[in-house]
Amino acid sequence: MRAITVPEPGGPEALVWAEVPDPVPAEGEVLVEVVAGAVNRADLLQRQGFYNPPPGASPYPGLECSGRIVALGPGVGAWQVGDEVCALLSGGGYAEKVAVPVGQLLPLPDGVDLITAAALPEVACTVWSNCFMVAHLRPGETLLVHGGSSGIGTMAIQLAKAVGARVAVTAGSAEKLDACRELGADILINYREQDFVDEIRKATAAQDGGAGAGADVILDIIGAKYLEQNIQALAVNGRLAIIGLQGGAKGELNLGALLVKRGTVTATSLRGRPPGEKAEIVAAVREHVWPLIGAGRIRPIVDRTIPMRDAAEAHRVLDASTHVGKILLTV
Amino acid sequence: MRAITVPEPGGPEALVWAEVPDPVPAEGEVLVEVVAGAVNRADLLQRQGFYNPPPGASPYPGLECSGRIVALGPGVGAWQVGDEVCALLSGGGYAEKVAVPVGQLLPLPDGVDLITAAALPEVACTVWSNCFMVAHLRPGETLLVHGGSSGIGTMAIQLAKAVGARVAVTAGSAEKLDACRELGADILINYREQDFVDEIRKATAAQDGGAGAGADVILDIIGAKYLEQNIQALAVNGRLAIIGLQGGAKGELNLGALLVKRGTVTATSLRGRPPGEKAEIVAAVREHVWPLIGAGRIRPIVDRTIPMRDAAEAHRVLDASTHVGKILLTV
Repeated sequence: MRAITVPEPGGPEALVWAEVPDPVPAEGEVLVEVVAGAVNRADLLQRQGFYNPPPGASPYPGLECSGRIVALGPGVGAWQVGDEVCALLSGGGYAEKVAVPVGQLLPLPDGVDLITAAALPEVACTVWSNCFMVAHLRPGETLLVHGGSSGIGTMAIQLAKAVGARVAVTAGSAEKLDACRELGADILINYREQDFVDEIRKATAAQDGGAGAGADVILDIIGAKYLEQNIQALAVNGRLAIIGLQGGAKGELNLGALLVKRGTVTATSLRGRPPGEKAEIVAAVREHVWPLIGAGRIRPIVDRTIPMRDAAEAHRVLDASTHVGKILLTV
Repeated sequence: MRAITVPEPGGPEALVWAEVPDPVPAEGEVLVEVVAGAVNRADLLQRQGFYNPPPGASPYPGLECSGRIVALGPGVGAWQVGDEVCALLSGGGYAEKVAVPVGQLLPLPDGVDLITAAALPEVACTVWSNCFMVAHLRPGETLLVHGGSSGIGTMAIQLAKAVGARVAVTAGSAEKLDACRELGADILINYREQDFVDEIRKATAAQDGGAGAGADVILDIIGAKYLEQNIQALAVNGRLAIIGLQGGAKGELNLGALLVKRGTVTATSLRGRPPGEKAEIVAAVREHVWPLIGAGRIRPIVDRTIPMRDAAEAHRVLDASTHVGKILLTV
């Protein structure tokens, strides 16, 4: 088969479409012929040599895909050759074939075509696991999403609205904020022009009759650079869920401020989770998120589709950060 | 009535036993004639002027007491004059009488005398709410308790053992560690002589066949000074529950290290919680902890009993930190 390889870490040009051996499905895995993959920020780090695949994972980038099952490994019962699926991967999605543990397979949601389905696994699993399994976002609470127009952001807005939460977003342009509003976001903050702590306090104070409650849950991709402000923006009993470190890893934490709010800071990554935890998350997504997509209450947001052999171009788009939603790679 | 007042913040001598007006029980409160109170580290901060009572709370120190109900406020049905109780307070325990919301009252556990019962409310509510309601300590997991011989520590050891967890403690002397061992602690770390990160890794590696898993839950009273080491000592999916800031409030948090472990940092205080949350915790303690005390599986640990008018002496003992368990104040 062919796959995007990274012979030497570097810029987008480091991505090389090359002939490689086919993967072989192990016990409890299926072989998927990939129709589309999608780009995640972690892929850019892997390309630069900063994010090695976990032990046992494919060496090629790509944390999600859609396609058809073409072979079953030993001990696989519930899936059949020919099934159309999408999948959460530990790597290897930038390839014509990938071996996938059955716990990470999902059927296509009703009404979603095979290519578009590649836009769903990472964002659905990341948002569900963090906002609901980790941070327990509840109806009526306020979620603040940094990067509201990203793939993660566009899913977080829709999912939080679908469960009855209020959603605040930050983004870097009026166009991106417009896209967030169309998806249902209630509070729109341009982080280049506004102080998100002030804005979230003003917006939640209006709701609470002046108390300035803040965000009950914050889904953050920035890390250290926003740590102090995120604690300031939290409501009492608030939960900060950090899923990216685009603004650095080490920051000062004011435990006194956290204690007064009885606040929680959690940092997670999906890729590092063992297969059992991934399967648990995928099962929860199938149960809770797939029906909302099938009912049209949540839609996959695709910025553009690029041939997989031109993955370098997709990385340039993500680096420039002018997109809204997911960037897909088609075989 | 008489109460310990703090006319001017300062050292232990700032505590003055003085005649003050009786409190009046408001709607949903009872008036308790205090038989004993107990000393908490927060009382020392309040004496020094660093920890003002929350709005509406008594101005006198004292976060727990035992005694007899002598009057009922409007709307109180489930308790009667003459009932022997102990109580979680927002303040006012260093006094002959205190008004208590009914949600913060507890009956005496079976087999515990009225004076000794004053040793229980703060430690039981703090340990239960943090280890179980916040950090969800599960059977088979490892809890690390800093300050294992403190009032909080002695309750945490016993409660965690009672639910089937493994317990590691830090303390500053062989005598204190002996006391922890007698209460059931499995892993004893002298923080003056040993590196607790190394020790917890060694001890949990032995259990996990070499993986060096670390502590699943850490109950911490130190804060900033231990923040980096506590993250290092956490297991994957570990939860750090900070309930005191004896080592400072602002520390560097390595979000990268936290993310790799999918770890959680929570900081809480019991006193700052609104009455509804306090009542929820008290109800959980009555359901889950009281039967274990009644069955003799958990016992109150009292270091010494001092007349309440000599509260200054009790504060000196707590400051010197040579005690094991709780220091009681009797009227």
